[in-house]
Amino acid sequence: MAMTFITKVISMGFELELQIDEEHEDAKYFQIYRQIRDLITSGAIPGGSKLPSIRTLAKNTDVNTSTVVNAYKMLEKDNLVYKREGSGTFVLSKDDEVLIGNDTFYFEPGELEFGYSYGEDVIDLSSSAPDPNLFPIKDFKNVMDEVLEEDGASAFMYQTSTGYLPLRKSLQSYSGSYGIKCNEDDIYVVSGAQQGIDIIAKAMVKSGDYVFVETPTYCGAIAAFKSRGARLVQVSLYPDGPGIKELEMLVKQFRPILFYAMPNFHNPTGYTYSERKKRYLLLLARKYNFKVLEDDYAGDLNFSTSRIFPLKSFDNDNSVIYLKSFSKIFMPGLRLAYLIVPEEIRERTADAKIASDISTSGLMQRVLRKYIEEGILKRHTEYLKKELAVRYLEMVRAVRKCIRGGSLVEPRGGLNLWVKLPNGISSVELYDKCMEKKVVISPGIFYTKGEVGLTHMRISFSGVDIEKIWQGISIIGTEVENIKNKNRIEII
Amino acid sequence: MAMTFITKVISMGFELELQIDEEHEDAKYFQIYRQIRDLITSGAIPGGSKLPSIRTLAKNTDVNTSTVVNAYKMLEKDNLVYKREGSGTFVLSKDDEVLIGNDTFYFEPGELEFGYSYGEDVIDLSSSAPDPNLFPIKDFKNVMDEVLEEDGASAFMYQTSTGYLPLRKSLQSYSGSYGIKCNEDDIYVVSGAQQGIDIIAKAMVKSGDYVFVETPTYCGAIAAFKSRGARLVQVSLYPDGPGIKELEMLVKQFRPILFYAMPNFHNPTGYTYSERKKRYLLLLARKYNFKVLEDDYAGDLNFSTSRIFPLKSFDNDNSVIYLKSFSKIFMPGLRLAYLIVPEEIRERTADAKIASDISTSGLMQRVLRKYIEEGILKRHTEYLKKELAVRYLEMVRAVRKCIRGGSLVEPRGGLNLWVKLPNGISSVELYDKCMEKKVVISPGIFYTKGEVGLTHMRISFSGVDIEKIWQGISIIGTEVENIKNKNRIEII
Repeated sequence: MAMTFITKVISMGFELELQIDEEHEDAKYFQIYRQIRDLITSGAIPGGSKLPSIRTLAKNTDVNTSTVVNAYKMLEKDNLVYKREGSGTFVLSKDDEVLIGNDTFYFEPGELEFGYSYGEDVIDLSSSAPDPNLFPIKDFKNVMDEVLEEDGASAFMYQTSTGYLPLRKSLQSYSGSYGIKCNEDDIYVVSGAQQGIDIIAKAMVKSGDYVFVETPTYCGAIAAFKSRGARLVQVSLYPDGPGIKELEMLVKQFRPILFYAMPNFHNPTGYTYSERKKRYLLLLARKYNFKVLEDDYAGDLNFSTSRIFPLKSFDNDNSVIYLKSFSKIFMPGLRLAYLIVPEEIRERTADAKIASDISTSGLMQRVLRKYIEEGILKRHTEYLKKELAVRYLEMVRAVRKCIRGGSLVEPRGGLNLWVKLPNGISSVELYDKCMEKKVVISPGIFYTKGEVGLTHMRISFSGVDIEKIWQGISIIGTEVENIKNKNRIEII
Repeated sequence: MAMTFITKVISMGFELELQIDEEHEDAKYFQIYRQIRDLITSGAIPGGSKLPSIRTLAKNTDVNTSTVVNAYKMLEKDNLVYKREGSGTFVLSKDDEVLIGNDTFYFEPGELEFGYSYGEDVIDLSSSAPDPNLFPIKDFKNVMDEVLEEDGASAFMYQTSTGYLPLRKSLQSYSGSYGIKCNEDDIYVVSGAQQGIDIIAKAMVKSGDYVFVETPTYCGAIAAFKSRGARLVQVSLYPDGPGIKELEMLVKQFRPILFYAMPNFHNPTGYTYSERKKRYLLLLARKYNFKVLEDDYAGDLNFSTSRIFPLKSFDNDNSVIYLKSFSKIFMPGLRLAYLIVPEEIRERTADAKIASDISTSGLMQRVLRKYIEEGILKRHTEYLKKELAVRYLEMVRAVRKCIRGGSLVEPRGGLNLWVKLPNGISSVELYDKCMEKKVVISPGIFYTKGEVGLTHMRISFSGVDIEKIWQGISIIGTEVENIKNKNRIEII
């Protein structure tokens, strides 16, 4: 028998009429979730409205409070509502920024990520920069000498803003080896991936525009989009990519102009979108007319036997702006990356590059070109992949062995592991404890929403050797046990 | 006898009451100008108001139309009013952008300035990049080898975003040699001056903020500020700096947050602010609480016998953000510059740098440091100064000899001459004609307001040798005469 409960929320001017069917195959929480969701997306409950309190709704619909809690949680996960501490649950309006409220969870990228050098005795698992011992310094010196010999002064002049033409030609065929069809005019050389993101933000994002990001995501991207006044919407991520229905609902609601995504070996989770989801994302991009900025920061570092293609290789509609950094597979200090840019935003991209730094070092562009043309980059990438694959496997083993109660989805590529900590362990507390023992982890606070920031940590296997991996993970494991014990004592 | 004329402009809701004294020492046009100016700045005539037509005002105040025309021209020069083609003269409101209306006069910097390489047979006087033949390539190679030897892989890692500490220390004492007191924490290494401007724009400018620029000014700065949604106000420039009263009036009216200025050897005019005006500008900055971004792109290239100090060296109130490029005195392709940043905006500057490109190449930073520490940069700067001083003198001579009816204020430093063309010669037409003869000039369209863009050209002596200087200027002289003759025939 179907029962209908009516709750009127007069202050906000809408009526909430819910129908709960006890015999329906869907659980009650799901029925509540579905109906409120539809009312919100249809506009029947306007943005800014306050939902009835959990207690009121539970009472009026004759369900347990936990049922309403679950329904509200799902709405929150869909980015349709948000909780305001102490004042209730509100329907998100287009004017709200869909972000975590607590900025103290937002680590400055400079603090943990870049250039910060701990002492020799510290095991740094927080930086995903490659181990300097793997840098091809000798090759670099030889190539540099060749460039100076051949090009002399012209390497030190201002360069064309879009990039040194011979390099763009090399990058065109280089992209081809990843299944990407493009021509040299599509390619823009930039001074590292961060600048690539910043330039696309400059070229496309106006104040108030909606930009989608995965959650969690890379802090540097957040900084670049926020600097343009973008409103950010976080898209939940699963091990095979975003929830497609959730994503379409968000897209319909917010009409983003851009989705910043790392479809392969996502940072920090290591997740890779399935091919089906890649194709579906492109369908959405075409249907709702937004661009995807694909940050392929680690696509080369695939340790599995199956090939993984970039999103761009499936893109027949010029929906994808492709961004590839050479910081991870070559050397970060050279500040080199490139963009593949759809024709309609090329001019704006060129203007943004000029306004940013005019052009990327001509000397470094020439060095990179020789690396590619002489096959050194390919050889080095293969070498790096082998080295990192070994470290990856060791780190997975170490985590499985030392961190009891933790879990992870094996990324099978990239630079990082994203480890779910045992219940009750906060990554921020763990970070502090490990720091005391001279092991540095990244707490899971990559601009994540809700609790995932506290329940996960990112540890990178790219910057440390196998001995340090085992030492570091073993210390983390000990600290995890110490926190568990402390918590147990506190409960007693 | 004093006479009072009253004009009522009913549609806009203000009364214009002017008093014209025939025996006053000021000319009538100046009396009209002064009174309207005071009414506008006091707010008695609100922004957006339409002034009476020239004919009406002339009739009502019993003066010639040319008197009113002159008064309105002065108001326009003060940025208080603007003409709308075909609909009259309007009082500028805070919402108007105080810029030239005709964007076709805005050359893309990339087009003329950077990286564009003409054929061997072309004489390029448009680029102010230094002559590659003067680059210290051999020194560079030696220093690079030393750096690789000593620092190895660490030169290729991510760097601290604010810059490589030993370099910042070197830059501190380097700045001291220009009379600037600062400490290493004030110094931020950036990837070229354009990035320096872009970072300060990111750190300080929100959409709708007023930013002052000199007119004419450097296009790349305009691009960076416009990209942030700044409203730009152009400050007229005289050979000894901005008109101080004009400037104070504009500052009072628009309350800028930033004034982007090149007080020494200004680009393109070559003007240098007098010390009095430098000090006055700093007084204004303190009084009205704005910052000056001093772009010291060519301060080293002083060919006169008197020392010229940067604005920053007079700054006791942290009003000046100092920006110095190494593109002109070292090599543009290295993309190196530095900022000296007042404490209150340091954090925002660091964030903006991270969001822009994380850090500047550690390798290049190390090379620059060695250049400074080993005295190579100083030696090279002296060498460059001598070389360019000779070219400068030759170019001044060539202009005086070959361009009849032209004139210029001798800059006595820098990289460029700003030449006023003979009456009736348009720099855009001259540009086209010279291009046909394979000589490239910069028409005076450096985001200039009004006619100055057509009446002047910029020619650079930094990128060409003496022979080419004479060849080039002689061809320009011939084309000037050809245009004069053509104009004469058209009049007949």
